[in-house]
Amino acid sequence: MKWKDKLKLYVITDSRFIDEVKGAKLALEGGATTIQLRMKNASTRRMIDVGIKIKKLTEEYNALFIVNDRVDVALATKADGVHLGQEDMPVDLAREIVGDMLIGVSASNLTEAIEAEKAGADYIGAGSVFPTSTKEDAKFLGIDALRRVVEEVNIPVVAIGGINFENIKLVLEAKVNGVAVISAIMGAEDIREAARKMRRIVDEYIS
Amino acid sequence: MKWKDKLKLYVITDSRFIDEVKGAKLALEGGATTIQLRMKNASTRRMIDVGIKIKKLTEEYNALFIVNDRVDVALATKADGVHLGQEDMPVDLAREIVGDMLIGVSASNLTEAIEAEKAGADYIGAGSVFPTSTKEDAKFLGIDALRRVVEEVNIPVVAIGGINFENIKLVLEAKVNGVAVISAIMGAEDIREAARKMRRIVDEYIS
Repeated sequence: MKWKDKLKLYVITDSRFIDEVKGAKLALEGGATTIQLRMKNASTRRMIDVGIKIKKLTEEYNALFIVNDRVDVALATKADGVHLGQEDMPVDLAREIVGDMLIGVSASNLTEAIEAEKAGADYIGAGSVFPTSTKEDAKFLGIDALRRVVEEVNIPVVAIGGINFENIKLVLEAKVNGVAVISAIMGAEDIREAARKMRRIVDEYIS
Repeated sequence: MKWKDKLKLYVITDSRFIDEVKGAKLALEGGATTIQLRMKNASTRRMIDVGIKIKKLTEEYNALFIVNDRVDVALATKADGVHLGQEDMPVDLAREIVGDMLIGVSASNLTEAIEAEKAGADYIGAGSVFPTSTKEDAKFLGIDALRRVVEEVNIPVVAIGGINFENIKLVLEAKVNGVAVISAIMGAEDIREAARKMRRIVDEYIS
């Protein structure tokens, strides 16, 4: 599988639901193709320790390991990529530092998506597609705007924000390269089974 | 001045006292020879914005610019160095990432200081020498142990923690290469004057 194909089921850790490593392992067992480590308010050393464990798991499962925000943690854990929000390191600066490591950028509208592509992003995290409780301050994008992002940018687009088993087909019909989820999988009672079920749906739309 | 000589008056930002850039500027005007940017709970982008401004100031004043904890911010701001605590990135990993950028390491006892030197640190931040209110959880080192660190390690030692105008000569008599302060300067009513006064004392002991 090429890296682009591994964006299709992109699962983000959230310690409010489950320990990062345990959650990543279950999601990978179920069929997650990317794990993003998102940790706030932990020491850098702890982020690195956790990241190294998840990196090892993603290698076993032939999945991507992406670190949220922290270029330093991405480098220290030899991650496949780093994911940058609009309040994180600017893409052009990050590119100078990480070389050919993957860089994903969050875009909440078409302008941000186009700018991220121009600045050197490898993929876009477009959202929040739907209202979400995980990031209450996230701007709302919607399906029509998501479709426009997919049409207008030339790099892969991963949809994020409020995606669940009820609305996922709407998102996949917008021809995204992947769906990113937190609570739909990490918040499930059976994480492995939720990932398995979502992977089956994703596979119907993305080869 | 060589970089080692610029460790002599090492001032750390603290937004609880004053905005990082304003505080750095006043301290440099008074004679600070190193500014360390220590920011917690700010976005990475804001840390980089603030860091770039302070880096510019340190260049004007021929001082060192060091970033606390964040190797990514140090790289993005082209800092002279990064300062790592025991809960930050391990020194050997940081060395692989930052190349010949300066790496300082906090040590609260002789063992940690020796280990940091072996792992590739360029200087030691030894402390807390005295009890301090700035870092209430800091372990207490004391003057005798500080003197032993200076004797046993072969890299420069900067003393930190609770140093003020009353006790600074005790610290300087331990033959440290520099003193690091937060509240004694950033918490002063006249920051510029406090830095000037402390620089004069430091210059009596360190050429």
